[in-house]
Amino acid sequence: MIKNVYDTSLSLLTDLYQLTMAYGYWKSGTSEKEAVFNLYFRKNPFGGGFTIACGLAQAVDYVNNFGFSAADLHYLRSLTGNDGQPLFEEAFLDYLAGLKLTIDLEAVPEGTVTFPNEPLLRVRGPILQCQLLETPLLNLVNFESLIATKAARLRLVAETDTVLEFGLRRAQGIDGGLTASRAAYIGGCDATSNVLAGKQYDIPVRGTHAHSWVMSFDSELESFETYARVMPNNVTLLVDTYDTLQGVQNAIETGRQLRRQGYELSGIRLDSGDLAYLSIEARKLLDEAGFPDTAIVASNDLDETIIASLKQQGARITIWGVGTKLVTAYDQPALGGVYKLAAIRHEASGAWDYKMKLSEQAIKISTPGLQQVRRFRDERGFLADMIYDEEMNGAERLVTLIDPLDFTKRRRFDVGQPFENLLVPVFRAGQCVYANPDIHTVRARVQTQLAGLHPGVKRFVNPHIYPVGLEQGLHELKTELILKLREGR
Amino acid sequence: MIKNVYDTSLSLLTDLYQLTMAYGYWKSGTSEKEAVFNLYFRKNPFGGGFTIACGLAQAVDYVNNFGFSAADLHYLRSLTGNDGQPLFEEAFLDYLAGLKLTIDLEAVPEGTVTFPNEPLLRVRGPILQCQLLETPLLNLVNFESLIATKAARLRLVAETDTVLEFGLRRAQGIDGGLTASRAAYIGGCDATSNVLAGKQYDIPVRGTHAHSWVMSFDSELESFETYARVMPNNVTLLVDTYDTLQGVQNAIETGRQLRRQGYELSGIRLDSGDLAYLSIEARKLLDEAGFPDTAIVASNDLDETIIASLKQQGARITIWGVGTKLVTAYDQPALGGVYKLAAIRHEASGAWDYKMKLSEQAIKISTPGLQQVRRFRDERGFLADMIYDEEMNGAERLVTLIDPLDFTKRRRFDVGQPFENLLVPVFRAGQCVYANPDIHTVRARVQTQLAGLHPGVKRFVNPHIYPVGLEQGLHELKTELILKLREGR
Repeated sequence: MIKNVYDTSLSLLTDLYQLTMAYGYWKSGTSEKEAVFNLYFRKNPFGGGFTIACGLAQAVDYVNNFGFSAADLHYLRSLTGNDGQPLFEEAFLDYLAGLKLTIDLEAVPEGTVTFPNEPLLRVRGPILQCQLLETPLLNLVNFESLIATKAARLRLVAETDTVLEFGLRRAQGIDGGLTASRAAYIGGCDATSNVLAGKQYDIPVRGTHAHSWVMSFDSELESFETYARVMPNNVTLLVDTYDTLQGVQNAIETGRQLRRQGYELSGIRLDSGDLAYLSIEARKLLDEAGFPDTAIVASNDLDETIIASLKQQGARITIWGVGTKLVTAYDQPALGGVYKLAAIRHEASGAWDYKMKLSEQAIKISTPGLQQVRRFRDERGFLADMIYDEEMNGAERLVTLIDPLDFTKRRRFDVGQPFENLLVPVFRAGQCVYANPDIHTVRARVQTQLAGLHPGVKRFVNPHIYPVGLEQGLHELKTELILKLREGR
Repeated sequence: MIKNVYDTSLSLLTDLYQLTMAYGYWKSGTSEKEAVFNLYFRKNPFGGGFTIACGLAQAVDYVNNFGFSAADLHYLRSLTGNDGQPLFEEAFLDYLAGLKLTIDLEAVPEGTVTFPNEPLLRVRGPILQCQLLETPLLNLVNFESLIATKAARLRLVAETDTVLEFGLRRAQGIDGGLTASRAAYIGGCDATSNVLAGKQYDIPVRGTHAHSWVMSFDSELESFETYARVMPNNVTLLVDTYDTLQGVQNAIETGRQLRRQGYELSGIRLDSGDLAYLSIEARKLLDEAGFPDTAIVASNDLDETIIASLKQQGARITIWGVGTKLVTAYDQPALGGVYKLAAIRHEASGAWDYKMKLSEQAIKISTPGLQQVRRFRDERGFLADMIYDEEMNGAERLVTLIDPLDFTKRRRFDVGQPFENLLVPVFRAGQCVYANPDIHTVRARVQTQLAGLHPGVKRFVNPHIYPVGLEQGLHELKTELILKLREGR
């Protein structure tokens, strides 16, 4: 989808203040100052213990296609300030017309398990360019990571059951629906009802019929029989249009006819009522009638909490259709990712000038530095993540982590502890150096990553907090900078 | 945005079951049966008393551009059932290739105040065509109506203050952001930060600078002075990067310099901390320094509840920047619109065969009929809405409303009572017969419409329920049908 949108350029897909700041940098001669920004979030969504990184493929597309069109500049030329005069001077628009991105971008690959304060993306380059990318990168990464995380939670609770994503009709706009389908599949859903998402992203699609099909016939049985005759290799019958258990009987009758033609009744679907009770009763009816392999599909405002409850009640459902609650991340419809300036290279000395934003709330104080994340592990899984500055430290110092919110909480690793660095190069001087894995590989990565986490971290209620710390040198730099800023201004 | 997306056809932007049902209708020879579907919602969002209809312009675009491309059909050809055989036969794909919509569509104009159970859209035509439109129409109308309603609530609480929409970075995808900006402006916002939305939809755009601008300089004052020098006709300074009230002092200093150059400091912006306290203190500092016209802008996870509380605390804020909570409709991120079959024309007799879906819950039982909504009014405003069947009744009977959830609650109007019918013709036999008003006209309509509502209906806490009833004849038809269905199956 995003590709088509690009046909008229999405370079205006940004907040106006990115452009007014860009103008400010350009006009004051500082646009080429080398800066580093980190994109990260402060809290895992849904009260959970982890977040699945997603959206990088779209971000790569965005950066690859960046550039202002004549129509974009024509529009910018029309904008005026409070005195009715143009906001931007012509020479700046000329500058934008010729602007080619030369940034470096590092990112955590899609499908990686991540935690608060870890950079998902790190952008380095002329400050003007970094600034222009803030809003679109946040938009793309915030939303897809949110939905992939929601889907991963559904996958955890559904265990080996099938999870179908059904949310398009209540998604937040067309692209909200498409992007959600992609992220939901990556996070662990098995298929989508969204045909365009199936086509665009190579996701399996699923669907049979709605209530309207049943209502368009004189009787439910006639509607079932017609459907089964027409599409015998894809028969899941919706049984709750009038009376659910009578509907199951009609489905069984249809299943018998199907079997005589050499086909099997794949499933029945419950879309209302007491899903625990009805699924148990329906299972009995199906089993007694000789349809033990006919699956029971359920839908109706499901989420991970309701699925967990239904399973705990012994519901005999093995296929879960999840819509609104998944594609809008209903209980927390936004991930609060931010994009913060972390360093600017001093022009005279060439040294990094570390930057941070203060706040009365410790959680809102940003961390300076050219951040990389080192994930320590052993044969059982992930042990802890350390945020460090790539240029500040020698590798021999990368052993002590300090909790960013409580400096007395520390953790020390031997130099020989196995690890991997999470951020990988994606752009170098504006050129893409990263090949996005296919969607199925990304989806598989989510499960491998989750397998590396201690079960307590994956718990929904009061999850164990996975340890993420600042490398000692970075911690000390940050502390020093806070003290200086608090005194200084 | 939607136009660009159409370049590859959005006709696959639907649930697979719409296509499998379409195949079923086609294969069983019933695809041309004339059907009527109503699109409506069951509950006002946010616990409020009204909903603003929005999204029709996009829906019109969608219907105008409907049609399957060769690539779409190629994809559909690749889909298989559980036996590995194709889901659709070739002749059906040929049929889709040649399919032109011939539907009639009626709709409530954008910007109209609407209530539960009233059709926002009514689609009439061959059942196959009606079915294919269900998902995209729901997607477009659900989301924009949700956001327009949220914005209208913000407008109510902000009274004459300015409301700016800032949400792109946390919107649900690119189009989620764009569409939200449009609906937010229609609902009552004054401007957006989203430059592409400004360009695409003719919405005023606003923006100045972020924390990163301040952090990129050696001192806050230097950053303010530089910004003011570069863009003196658009200066709203963000004062909370380090210490808010010191930031206000720096802004005042910058304002004095601006004034010497013949410009005024437009505003300061607070983005964290105790916004009530800080705005009162900042107002004092600004007034004492001779800047009574410099506005105080506030942002930081605002919504209508927080704005009401801040105003009640005497906050001196007159410009409200609202982001995440608006564009994702954070406290209720989906409007539960549905699209229900209401009648099918009987082929032999030519009479309408009324259709409805039963449910254990009265609120989930659909209403049959070719529905129109008549809004009765007097010189003070709207009195009540009556849902009636356009073909079932003579005008002389259109006087008695019956509450759909309690048939003993009735309301009777004289035949001479002034009224208007809410649904207007939009498509006739597949041809658009409706000219979408421009966005500013739609935005103005929202305010005129809200002015027609009793203040109690606009209240946020326990709003008065605006009376919406079924016309007596339709009520009787529905009752009869329920009894028949409950007995019959």
